[in-house]
Amino acid sequence: MRGFIPGLYTLRHGAIMNDDPRMRGFSRRADVDDVAALIDDHVAPLAAEWAELLAAGGRVLAADMTARTDVPAFARAAMDGYAVIAEETFGATPTDLRTLRIVGESLPAAPASAAVEPGTCVRIMTGAPVPDGADAVVPVEQTRKEQTGQPAPKLREERRRDGDASVAITAPVTPGRHVGRVGEDIKRGTVVLKAGRRLRPQDLGALSSLGFPRVPVVRQPYVALIVTGNELLPAGSKPDGYKIVDAATPMLMQLVQRDGGKLLTGAIVRDEKEALREALSVAATRADCVLVSGGSSVGQEDHAPSLVRELGELSIHGVAMRPASPAGIGFVHQKPVFLLPGNPVSCLCAYDFFAGRAIRLLSGRHPNWPHTKVRMPLKQKIASQLGRTDYVRVRIENEQVVPLAIGGASILTSTVRAHGFVIVKKNAEGHAPGDPVDVRLY
Amino acid sequence: MRGFIPGLYTLRHGAIMNDDPRMRGFSRRADVDDVAALIDDHVAPLAAEWAELLAAGGRVLAADMTARTDVPAFARAAMDGYAVIAEETFGATPTDLRTLRIVGESLPAAPASAAVEPGTCVRIMTGAPVPDGADAVVPVEQTRKEQTGQPAPKLREERRRDGDASVAITAPVTPGRHVGRVGEDIKRGTVVLKAGRRLRPQDLGALSSLGFPRVPVVRQPYVALIVTGNELLPAGSKPDGYKIVDAATPMLMQLVQRDGGKLLTGAIVRDEKEALREALSVAATRADCVLVSGGSSVGQEDHAPSLVRELGELSIHGVAMRPASPAGIGFVHQKPVFLLPGNPVSCLCAYDFFAGRAIRLLSGRHPNWPHTKVRMPLKQKIASQLGRTDYVRVRIENEQVVPLAIGGASILTSTVRAHGFVIVKKNAEGHAPGDPVDVRLY
Repeated sequence: MRGFIPGLYTLRHGAIMNDDPRMRGFSRRADVDDVAALIDDHVAPLAAEWAELLAAGGRVLAADMTARTDVPAFARAAMDGYAVIAEETFGATPTDLRTLRIVGESLPAAPASAAVEPGTCVRIMTGAPVPDGADAVVPVEQTRKEQTGQPAPKLREERRRDGDASVAITAPVTPGRHVGRVGEDIKRGTVVLKAGRRLRPQDLGALSSLGFPRVPVVRQPYVALIVTGNELLPAGSKPDGYKIVDAATPMLMQLVQRDGGKLLTGAIVRDEKEALREALSVAATRADCVLVSGGSSVGQEDHAPSLVRELGELSIHGVAMRPASPAGIGFVHQKPVFLLPGNPVSCLCAYDFFAGRAIRLLSGRHPNWPHTKVRMPLKQKIASQLGRTDYVRVRIENEQVVPLAIGGASILTSTVRAHGFVIVKKNAEGHAPGDPVDVRLY
Repeated sequence: MRGFIPGLYTLRHGAIMNDDPRMRGFSRRADVDDVAALIDDHVAPLAAEWAELLAAGGRVLAADMTARTDVPAFARAAMDGYAVIAEETFGATPTDLRTLRIVGESLPAAPASAAVEPGTCVRIMTGAPVPDGADAVVPVEQTRKEQTGQPAPKLREERRRDGDASVAITAPVTPGRHVGRVGEDIKRGTVVLKAGRRLRPQDLGALSSLGFPRVPVVRQPYVALIVTGNELLPAGSKPDGYKIVDAATPMLMQLVQRDGGKLLTGAIVRDEKEALREALSVAATRADCVLVSGGSSVGQEDHAPSLVRELGELSIHGVAMRPASPAGIGFVHQKPVFLLPGNPVSCLCAYDFFAGRAIRLLSGRHPNWPHTKVRMPLKQKIASQLGRTDYVRVRIENEQVVPLAIGGASILTSTVRAHGFVIVKKNAEGHAPGDPVDVRLY
């Protein structure tokens, strides 16, 4: 947490919810952007830990990585051919050959014992050390067997036949040609990758070349999930009578992984204040971030908001958005706690707007939406309310955006059928047919 | 493998490489699109296996998933309020109240014992079963305490005080209002998700609601990596003299994971034909796909192409592209084998063009490039050769595309500095400044 001071946000931005327990509903709803600002102000990357290089893909560097060696560390051949003194090849043509005596061979990790002196050369393979004296490599395609004038056979065969023959050069090379210079790829002492970089495959390759066995990375956050509801059976159960199966855990498992966190799950908590208090307190002690699914609104079984206020601070409860308006955020033991509505679409929406952002920040990633974005015209209008942010599930059909639903927070299949979603900002009253809109793809 | 017949491709598309061992270099190079077509023809998704729902995120469904229950399975309240006979609320206004006697309470998984009859209602919470007789829910916001005309207190408090009171309705509801119908989200017997679907977070939620504890998914391919080269030290070592550290394994580890495979690694294989034969034969027996890094060209230490031909079929060797022209593909024990050049940029390029495609197909995914694509104008021209496909590393600066390099296959940091790459197709001689180009982002 970066300088988190409980109560600060509330003071700075004004109280969000009317705390009078006799009031029903939300007296005032927070703006979506204010919630994001609160998260950005109070959530910072976790401390560093070491990751083995082979397991560091996708992790975020916690420190600059400085090269401790040159890559390459020695001049190496970039082609199969002959290491030569470039000057001796000047003027060579297929009819005006330059003949050089072969005095040795350089293979990868097996350098030639002889140096190249005027009138001589060394056979060399791609990646092999360029011998002393030589300053260029003539590719084998620009040479001939000296005696016959025929194209030279494969180097291996030649070596077998006539160990110490000569070779005729048919074209000139300039100094440095086909030689990988010391430090050409990476110079010793340079910063190869900066702190904050999310490691890509090629980054791991470069770090490996430099001899790093492990790298300092931002620790992955543990995200505790508390699922509440007397009507819920654990994921993997069959629905039974009036009992329904928890949809939040499998969904959040994948979302939290996507954002760089590790989900900690527990038994489903009954809608009882003491049980939830215990679960919340333990979760905020053990994890870096807590998600509470269900029990987050203002109904009689909704204990989560008051418990967050009691155990820490309830910074925001109620957001001017649809769906997910009962979402909330607070801090317990200075760990961010997200109140996610029990309705599955609201849960997905509140996670993606708020909790995912915090988890990406804790992981050291960029906080913005991780979805691929495409811009296409709307087929039908989207109606929205001024002052409210809408999360509209849409399909893409014939390069046009077809809205599926704004409401219907319990209809999870609206998100299954959708290709993505459009965010209608609070200062828009919706969008007209033909308007280009940004679709974030699921 | 889908109907793989060794030799078929070679016959259909013509031989790609001159097999005469006395010839140097590639007599003819295959087209990039021909390689992709070969892969698409001969590589198909692996068989199905079961995955636990919580571990199925991102996996590909191997069968249609049909709902065995309705969701919801019972009519449920979509709001906190009162379950009523809608008709009895018609005409209600704040000055013309409709008063109903409360005969019970319905909570999630705890239905009311009484049915709703004319003149009565049942208190109900979001998600609770709608009692017999009722056909709508009046939200608590559209009610008043009957006696006082004041806004009703929270339902829990009301229940404590005066268990069997009445409530006054201030606005009408239509039949079905705020009631989630049976099967409204998912109807029993419908196909919720089709085979081939890559599972998203919300898909797992829907499958969980339907009571699936596990799902049939395409098995993840095991991808064996053989790294060859006498000059190589294993990843995690420090470079030492003329010995350099393997950059391919960490890079390919992350790439193979990205594409849905699991990388199997082994000790680095020396540039000796027998050692490589043994490694290749074991790898093709145990894994679903084999990657050979290094030893893939036509130099004296390049045994991989001839061994693939000996143990199975070398379908293509040499591709008209830059970098990665020595790349090849064949089949051993009917498993696809990819010859990846030892130069790290060529390795990345050949992996992404060919091996990644095959691994995605084996995993059941769409074979196309997985990178996010953006279209922007070029800042400087890119020169290319007609008939050759180029893989150009680029940076994006001020919304313009700046090419970094086409050649320099040993300069891995060109891919570290780049934001992505542009593919220059074989029928283009490059692109002029200002031309819009597609950048695939790393």
